[in-house]
Amino acid sequence: MQIVIIGSGNVAYHMAKAFTLKGIPLAQLFGRNEKELSQISHELNIPYSTDHLEEADLYIICVSDHSVEEVSKVITGKDCLVAHTSGSLSKEVLAGNYRKASFYPLQTFSKSKDLEYEKIPFFIEAENEEDQKILFGLASKISERVMESTHEKRKYIHLTAVFACNFVNHLFARAKEISDSQEIPFDYFLPLIDETVQKIHEIEPKMAQTGPAVRNDVRILQLHEQLLKDESLDIYKTMNHSIQKMYEL
Amino acid sequence: MQIVIIGSGNVAYHMAKAFTLKGIPLAQLFGRNEKELSQISHELNIPYSTDHLEEADLYIICVSDHSVEEVSKVITGKDCLVAHTSGSLSKEVLAGNYRKASFYPLQTFSKSKDLEYEKIPFFIEAENEEDQKILFGLASKISERVMESTHEKRKYIHLTAVFACNFVNHLFARAKEISDSQEIPFDYFLPLIDETVQKIHEIEPKMAQTGPAVRNDVRILQLHEQLLKDESLDIYKTMNHSIQKMYEL
Repeated sequence: MQIVIIGSGNVAYHMAKAFTLKGIPLAQLFGRNEKELSQISHELNIPYSTDHLEEADLYIICVSDHSVEEVSKVITGKDCLVAHTSGSLSKEVLAGNYRKASFYPLQTFSKSKDLEYEKIPFFIEAENEEDQKILFGLASKISERVMESTHEKRKYIHLTAVFACNFVNHLFARAKEISDSQEIPFDYFLPLIDETVQKIHEIEPKMAQTGPAVRNDVRILQLHEQLLKDESLDIYKTMNHSIQKMYEL
Repeated sequence: MQIVIIGSGNVAYHMAKAFTLKGIPLAQLFGRNEKELSQISHELNIPYSTDHLEEADLYIICVSDHSVEEVSKVITGKDCLVAHTSGSLSKEVLAGNYRKASFYPLQTFSKSKDLEYEKIPFFIEAENEEDQKILFGLASKISERVMESTHEKRKYIHLTAVFACNFVNHLFARAKEISDSQEIPFDYFLPLIDETVQKIHEIEPKMAQTGPAVRNDVRILQLHEQLLKDESLDIYKTMNHSIQKMYEL
C-alpha cells in the first residue's frame, strides 16, 4: 500500500516517525514548508515534495484544523482513501471524490519531545468496513490502543483533551510567570506537579482536590487575590468559583 | 529532642510518617479527631492524645490555615519551638510566648497516596539561627531539598502551587465530567496527561503550548463553546482569553 503524509508540523513529523519506526514505508511527505519537510525527510529517509503529490492508496492529512479542507483539495485521485488527524472535524470536511476517514491520535505532539507511540490512543472513523479495517490495521501497528469513534464522540474527546492538556499546560505557564516574578525556580514545583498527575492514576480527580478553595478558606483566597492581576486574577477567580460549585460550598 | 505533631489530617499523617520512616521519634500526635488520630497512631506506633498535650521541644502544627492560630494557643510552654506547615501564614500568627517558625513542605498530600519524601522541597523560616539550624537538620533528614524562605516569598510559592496543582487537578475533574457525560473512559486521557507533564520537564510551558486557542482556530473555539455550559464554559472562555493574551493573538 502506498501511503503519503501531508503536512510538516508536529503531528506530521510524529506520524511519519511512528510509521517509519514500525517498518511501514511511506511513499512521500508532501507540504508547503520546504525547510521543515527536508528536515523530516532527511531524518526519516522519506522522499518529499512541495509541488508534485505522489499517487497513493492512502493520504493522511496532518495539518491544522483550519487548513484541512483547503489541503484536502490537492488530492485529485478518486480511488484512494483520505484521512485527517483532527479531533474536531467531520470526515465530510474533506473536499474530494475519494473515500473519507478520520485517524485521530489523542496526544500532544512537539517535534523536540520523543513519544511512546504504543500508548497513544487512536480513534478511527471510516465510510465502510474495509477502510475501517485498513486504518485499524495501520494504527494497531503503531499503538496498543485503537478504537472506533463517531465524529460526535470525537468532538468530546478533543474537548476533554483541551481541558486535560492544553489548559493544564497554560496553568503551568501562568504558574511559572508567578514564580519567575519572585525569582523562585520553577523546578521546585516539578515534584508537586508530578504528584498531582500520579494521584489521578489512583484516585478520582474529584476526590483528590486540595487547596484553599475546596477548604473554603476565605482568608487565603482574599490574600491570593491581592497578589494577582489581569489574566491570572481572572483564572484564579474562575477556577475557585468552579471548584466551590463542584463541591457545593 | 521531644517532637509533637499537632493535627490528624493529610499533612499531619504524612509528616508523622516521614519522620517515622527516617527514624526520628515522635513523642505524641495531638488533635481533636480521635478516630483519625488512633488510626495514624496504630499505623505508625506513636502515642496520641486528644486532651493532654505532651511537653516538647518542638511542636509542628499541621492543620488547615484557618485553624492554625486557634490551635497554636493550646501550647502554653515558653521554652519551646513551634512551627506551622502553612504556605500562606506568617510565623507571627502563632499565638503564644514560644519561639515561632514555619516548616512548609511543598507537596499535595492525601492519606491514601504514598509519597517520595526525599523529593519534597521544604521551606524553613525561624526567628534565629539556632532554630533555623534545628529545622534545617530535621527537614534534611526527610528531604534532599531544604531551603530558607521569607513569609513574603512563601506566599508566592503557595500561590504558584495553587495554579500548578490545585487548579490543574480541578481541570482534570472538569475534563472527567465532560468525558463521563459521553461515556468515554477517562483513562484514555492518561497518556496525554502524563505527556503534558513530562514535556515541561524538558520544554518551557510557554513553548509547549498546543491547542485551538494558541493556533487561534476560531471555528473550533466556537464549536467547543456550543458543547459546554455553566462553570466549564466559564473556564473555557477564561483560559482561552488568557492563552491568547499571553501569545498576543
